[in-house]
Amino acid sequence: MEINGVQIEDTYAEGFPIKVARVLITAISQRWAMEAAREATGFGTSVIMCPAEAGIECTVPANETPDGRPGVYIQICNMGYSKLEGSLLARMGQCVLTAPTTAIFNGLPEAEKQFDTGFKLGFFGDGYQCDLDYCGRKACRIPLMEGDFMAEHTIGAVDGIAGGNFYIEGQNQAASLTAAEVAVDEIRRQRGTITPFPGGVVASGSKVGSEKYKFMKATSNLNFCPSLREDGTCTLPAGVTSVYEIVINGIDRASIENSMRAGIKAACTVPGILRISAGNFGGKLGPHHFHLHELLG
Amino acid sequence: MEINGVQIEDTYAEGFPIKVARVLITAISQRWAMEAAREATGFGTSVIMCPAEAGIECTVPANETPDGRPGVYIQICNMGYSKLEGSLLARMGQCVLTAPTTAIFNGLPEAEKQFDTGFKLGFFGDGYQCDLDYCGRKACRIPLMEGDFMAEHTIGAVDGIAGGNFYIEGQNQAASLTAAEVAVDEIRRQRGTITPFPGGVVASGSKVGSEKYKFMKATSNLNFCPSLREDGTCTLPAGVTSVYEIVINGIDRASIENSMRAGIKAACTVPGILRISAGNFGGKLGPHHFHLHELLG
Amino acid sequence: MEINGVQIEDTYAEGFPIKVARVLITAISQRWAMEAAREATGFGTSVIMCPAEAGIECTVPANETPDGRPGVYIQICNMGYSKLEGSLLARMGQCVLTAPTTAIFNGLPEAEKQFDTGFKLGFFGDGYQCDLDYCGRKACRIPLMEGDFMAEHTIGAVDGIAGGNFYIEGQNQAASLTAAEVAVDEIRRQRGTITPFPGGVVASGSKVGSEKYKFMKATSNLNFCPSLREDGTCTLPAGVTSVYEIVINGIDRASIENSMRAGIKAACTVPGILRISAGNFGGKLGPHHFHLHELLG
Amino acid sequence: MEINGVQIEDTYAEGFPIKVARVLITAISQRWAMEAAREATGFGTSVIMCPAEAGIECTVPANETPDGRPGVYIQICNMGYSKLEGSLLARMGQCVLTAPTTAIFNGLPEAEKQFDTGFKLGFFGDGYQCDLDYCGRKACRIPLMEGDFMAEHTIGAVDGIAGGNFYIEGQNQAASLTAAEVAVDEIRRQRGTITPFPGGVVASGSKVGSEKYKFMKATSNLNFCPSLREDGTCTLPAGVTSVYEIVINGIDRASIENSMRAGIKAACTVPGILRISAGNFGGKLGPHHFHLHELLG
Repeated sequence: MEINGVQIEDTYAEGFPIKVARVLITAISQRWAMEAAREATGFGTSVIMCPAEAGIECTVPANETPDGRPGVYIQICNMGYSKLEGSLLARMGQCVLTAPTTAIFNGLPEAEKQFDTGFKLGFFGDGYQCDLDYCGRKACRIPLMEGDFMAEHTIGAVDGIAGGNFYIEGQNQAASLTAAEVAVDEIRRQRGTITPFPGGVVASGSKVGSEKYKFMKATSNLNFCPSLREDGTCTLPAGVTSVYEIVINGIDRASIENSMRAGIKAACTVPGILRISAGNFGGKLGPHHFHLHELLG
Repeated sequence: MEINGVQIEDTYAEGFPIKVARVLITAISQRWAMEAAREATGFGTSVIMCPAEAGIECTVPANETPDGRPGVYIQICNMGYSKLEGSLLARMGQCVLTAPTTAIFNGLPEAEKQFDTGFKLGFFGDGYQCDLDYCGRKACRIPLMEGDFMAEHTIGAVDGIAGGNFYIEGQNQAASLTAAEVAVDEIRRQRGTITPFPGGVVASGSKVGSEKYKFMKATSNLNFCPSLREDGTCTLPAGVTSVYEIVINGIDRASIENSMRAGIKAACTVPGILRISAGNFGGKLGPHHFHLHELLG
Repeated sequence: MEINGVQIEDTYAEGFPIKVARVLITAISQRWAMEAAREATGFGTSVIMCPAEAGIECTVPANETPDGRPGVYIQICNMGYSKLEGSLLARMGQCVLTAPTTAIFNGLPEAEKQFDTGFKLGFFGDGYQCDLDYCGRKACRIPLMEGDFMAEHTIGAVDGIAGGNFYIEGQNQAASLTAAEVAVDEIRRQRGTITPFPGGVVASGSKVGSEKYKFMKATSNLNFCPSLREDGTCTLPAGVTSVYEIVINGIDRASIENSMRAGIKAACTVPGILRISAGNFGGKLGPHHFHLHELLG
Repeated sequence: MEINGVQIEDTYAEGFPIKVARVLITAISQRWAMEAAREATGFGTSVIMCPAEAGIECTVPANETPDGRPGVYIQICNMGYSKLEGSLLARMGQCVLTAPTTAIFNGLPEAEKQFDTGFKLGFFGDGYQCDLDYCGRKACRIPLMEGDFMAEHTIGAVDGIAGGNFYIEGQNQAASLTAAEVAVDEIRRQRGTITPFPGGVVASGSKVGSEKYKFMKATSNLNFCPSLREDGTCTLPAGVTSVYEIVINGIDRASIENSMRAGIKAACTVPGILRISAGNFGGKLGPHHFHLHELLG
């Protein structure tokens, strides 16, 4: 299969189950909603050594938010609901309540699982917090030095999927990276998914475990490392000198499929891209398989 | 004391000791160095509930970095050297090694304390990492899917200071926030300091502990909350309806003084700012006191 | 009438007829499409002393453009079709053909009026240009040092409207400016309109002609200048110290109405905004009147 | 000669004399100073069909400007002083006076040639403008709807140089463009020069005149067009598929040399760049020759 002359390998991405909370952050302006979102989702690339996986889903215009202000949807992900609740509370309390002009709303109001994160944030008010109806939502108002912070009482979460992915294999770093940037820009316009790595891009695609060091949970995916060609470790097609991976988490399978499709098509418009592939571990990592040819067929 | 018609209160900021590691991240472009820096310093506003305090110090041009590429200095801070080493390794491994095209260099090569973070990152290479001299530094080369990652073997750290601060008290949120933005932009041009909160700004200045909830380590600084005027809790000057705090960490006292001075002067150019103050806790929090009138005299 | 506690004055904006060409610029990435768009629409605030009025309409995702790359719609406006054709050719030739990786497509393919701008750009190829079908459009391919430039043969234009507007009157500059920024961000998400002034905002709302200098076509709208209160020249409500105008051009009346509505609602979410008004000249300027109460009713 | 493995061709850039005015724009924040600068320097790539050449020189911190606010230096260039004066007045009046919160200061106060641009802008005040000493400069205060605009009375200009340049020849568009971006970022940190093309980059390097069309002042530099290899027109080294040119104007020879050096060195750090060259016309265009090997030796 080819798109725009770029070969699409007949392989699949392998994802695994993760719990996903979704929050809508609004602020006085798009820029400040984004600052809060960035801080709240930082140090959140992989649960291997980060306290959570987290990322920015998309921005929304003022007319689509409860308080009529510009907004950003973010997702916080963790391996179980208990860990997720802790991550959510810490990140909302330390990175959004502290951020200028923000408010938070439930991004999954219809989910079965609901955390009372907004209620708990209220204790920061030291007794001066109060409940109120705010833009049709049950919320907590907390007096701050900047004015009042509004937090919807509950934040919903679902059984989502982590590790949707594809590889962008190019003639050189700049080509692969430009294609990765274009793919991430396009995925950021879709609903339901995040790309949790820095700028949405992974430079260091990994394999599960290690051949050599028992204490390592993940190590470099050596078969895809272009500098290891001499001894035959690297099995990339000739001409490929740089590969970026786009990792996609999401609230459900359909949204990940949609974002993989959008991202791959966008990446294939960049000159110098030779092949699109994907990362899997023969089923060792997880049950969610996304076959590229099915997705793009 | 007045600057540009803005009253400078006769008070002081109270800081506390913290350990500070400093890293220079370089990348193919300024933009990508910044993406890595943002991810690596996210979820890093306050050690109260974040795993570390972290922030972006400043950008540096290509001709000031060892590898001749654009760079960003960041700082990672924690309460002891042991915790700091863990934070540093996790954030470099998960947020910079994973970021496109980056390399890391020691930002404090002359400090007595040195962590072998670069060496430890090497294990990700699963045996294919190697040591080399890179741009005059002892470094580890790790094969990645994007190409090779270079990490200087050691990263230095010093006894620094956290909690330098000042308050910007304005006629409304937009005025206070604009002044805060201007102050942070100016502080980002100085060396040696970071402003770890979202976009460099704190919306929710706090006091130590709580009057009401024993389980809370910090709660809203109610005396500076403009919405609590009616019962006399708020003691802000008349006309002030919004206050932002700029919190500054740094590698030494001089750099914090320099950044406080630069930030305050810049904030005072914004129309609608009524007073500059600072946060202290009567010595309960820490031994480092920064008197505004001395700084600005 | 009030929105969010902000008074909406019972007045109207007065626009005038203008010719509008609309171009879709695509590029390798959103960022580079935007760079080309900015250069092509610069020095284009008002036909009083600019060679054209011009602005960025909105960005579009890759899946909505003919060549599957990210895009930006821009509009170029002038007082007659002949002048407009000259403006369009010069701006496309000097600012888009010269910009990295761009292509241009007809943004009004169904308009009656069509300029052969793409065809004329072809002469830059010095004989090596050629016609082809490109993504379903009749286009000209021009060899450049970066590779090949693609320009759709024709660019459409319509009888549009200039000078749609509203005033944002606030407690201070930062409040009014923040509201202006928020309004412009929201308008930039709508189709069919541009805000041609710097960053979308006018600091210097004007009146037609001058009381004192015959050679001036427009001078400061003194009745709305907050610093002229002492002698009664300024008739603004008490408390207003800064007013920004948002000027909106568009391809038709409906799109301007839509953008005025979106912008005003967004502006009214910002604390410190006291009143929304609009600029008119008693019919001296033009026949297109936009009554605020009708729009927002 | 090689830098980082990139070949530096033994050739020279050929520039020509131009008149250059230099303005310091300050504003409430760095962001708004930049918005004004962008509008004022737009539609300003080449005097061939633009009314002027114009660009952003560099940003300056608040503590380096007369009014203690963040600033941006811009340059406006034209072929004679009379044309330059017109360009300067129109661009300052339409794009900076109209921009939120800006002030303008003389960027070349010691130049012999001085235009009374600030004085002339004053007429917009319709009799309410006045002269005053502002931050140590003789200035004109003009009442606006946003508040008061301050313009230093005079703006200086000098005999400068246009057309300093170098070519970046790479393996593909993304590599060449990334190198161009890096070069422009680095040049934007230098004083005295501008890169007037979109985002600082030229996609369409040209030759003087045309082989085929007498009415064309400049046409595509066919010898450097990678798609014209088959008939031998293109004489680029094998493997080069995309070339970007960086054009540099400046106030004097030394500043152009400095920026060429900084830009070329930065470009050579990007993987996939094969050669650096430069554009000249055998002396037909102008007397200012910049030999690459001398510059970089």
